[in-house]
Amino acid sequence: MSNEVFSIQLAVRDYECDIQGIVNNAVYQNYLEHARHEFLKQAGVDFAEYAKKGIHLVVVRAELDYKSPLKSGDTFIVDLKLERESKVRFAFYQNVLRIADNRVMVKGKIIGTALNQRGRPEIPAALNRIIEDR
Amino acid sequence: MSNEVFSIQLAVRDYECDIQGIVNNAVYQNYLEHARHEFLKQAGVDFAEYAKKGIHLVVVRAELDYKSPLKSGDTFIVDLKLERESKVRFAFYQNVLRIADNRVMVKGKIIGTALNQRGRPEIPAALNRIIEDR
Amino acid sequence: MSNEVFSIQLAVRDYECDIQGIVNNAVYQNYLEHARHEFLKQAGVDFAEYAKKGIHLVVVRAELDYKSPLKSGDTFIVDLKLERESKVRFAFYQNVLRIADNRVMVKGKIIGTALNQRGRPEIPAALNRIIEDR
Amino acid sequence: MSNEVFSIQLAVRDYECDIQGIVNNAVYQNYLEHARHEFLKQAGVDFAEYAKKGIHLVVVRAELDYKSPLKSGDTFIVDLKLERESKVRFAFYQNVLRIADNRVMVKGKIIGTALNQRGRPEIPAALNRIIEDR
Repeated sequence: MSNEVFSIQLAVRDYECDIQGIVNNAVYQNYLEHARHEFLKQAGVDFAEYAKKGIHLVVVRAELDYKSPLKSGDTFIVDLKLERESKVRFAFYQNVLRIADNRVMVKGKIIGTALNQRGRPEIPAALNRIIEDR
Repeated sequence: MSNEVFSIQLAVRDYECDIQGIVNNAVYQNYLEHARHEFLKQAGVDFAEYAKKGIHLVVVRAELDYKSPLKSGDTFIVDLKLERESKVRFAFYQNVLRIADNRVMVKGKIIGTALNQRGRPEIPAALNRIIEDR
Repeated sequence: MSNEVFSIQLAVRDYECDIQGIVNNAVYQNYLEHARHEFLKQAGVDFAEYAKKGIHLVVVRAELDYKSPLKSGDTFIVDLKLERESKVRFAFYQNVLRIADNRVMVKGKIIGTALNQRGRPEIPAALNRIIEDR
Repeated sequence: MSNEVFSIQLAVRDYECDIQGIVNNAVYQNYLEHARHEFLKQAGVDFAEYAKKGIHLVVVRAELDYKSPLKSGDTFIVDLKLERESKVRFAFYQNVLRIADNRVMVKGKIIGTALNQRGRPEIPAALNRIIEDR
């Protein structure tokens, strides 16, 4: 049943664009992260609250395919699908889609884990439930 | 002879760190880009000048392995090796190394191309020479 | 008639927060700029289009009062009022208001001008009309 | 004796530049903050360590005069002078100077305070000593 898709809608902010007049490469990681955190929060896993408790959600690998650049004035969707990658790893499959033509601008696979208070990989029960539910 | 390594030295800035007290994932892409642009500039290929002329150096794929996080106060090296990937693509193999213990914190493979004034992939002669020289 | 207020609604993104767990000071300038650009665009003055034509809207002075910090999870309003400051200067009076309690978190006065293709201060007619209308 | 000046040297990174090809306004606040934190750290007051202990150094007001913009390729100095502003407030007078011609690009006055573990303004003894020494 891993086929539910979560998404948020955003607009390009001019300061996110660089000398070439397009959104800078690094900024897409910001967009993808924001979508992941919003998804996790609505599912009951709050990144900031976890950090305070000493549980750290961390990215271990990111793969990003840049298809076409967003520009000033564009609005876009960031979606995600969450899949289990291994016992202690999970993967977010994400797209950045331009709303004007539904075109995929960037595709990402972001692999994460969680570190417990002792710094060891251990996915919290609440997060495991989210992964299983999908 | 593709074995020459270019590197720059930087220090973590506190605003680059996030709620977890570590450098945010997206910021490493900033570090990697800055090293690439410095390398290209000293080799005679200026990103900003090219952009003005309508030649756009663009990233088509980024792979990042996050091994261990940089923190406030850390100094680090960003290095790179440039390799030809195909006729119109080149790859930067990059490391972020913490100076205190020479530990690899992040590894990246960044694949790029160049778009000419008509938006078609075409590597400028000056850049081709840099790729061949290495 | 300078009393119309324009506003946009935004949400804090976790990467905008720093080690203290609060939105970093510099980020509020991003929020304020984004509101100004959205305002100008809906009034027919597009920052990016102007830049392409060689007309640069620039900030000459910024005054920011930080009253209370935004945190992860907060949603907020950024508003603005535009006033003429002098023949070639205009001022945006802006607030960042937390939606939960309508509290003013940051107040800003941002003074700007426009530089024409020769780099001289000159407010384009379209922008002058917006200033007069308010 | 408040006339000692601390400074750091930095280089513009291309991702800090915006559509106009110049360093974005908000980025100067990053530069100014980095200089302040480096100054405080070498004087024994570590922003990140203080945050962990629950002592928060915060900016209450920022005034920035933008004289001329930094561009891709520029190197620059960020300096600062620290002055007492009141019993619980201190002010950093800062300049961003382009190295090529020693021109002042941005001037800033940044007023700060410190919040103790109960969230009340109280300047730690170590910081008071730094202010008095200057």
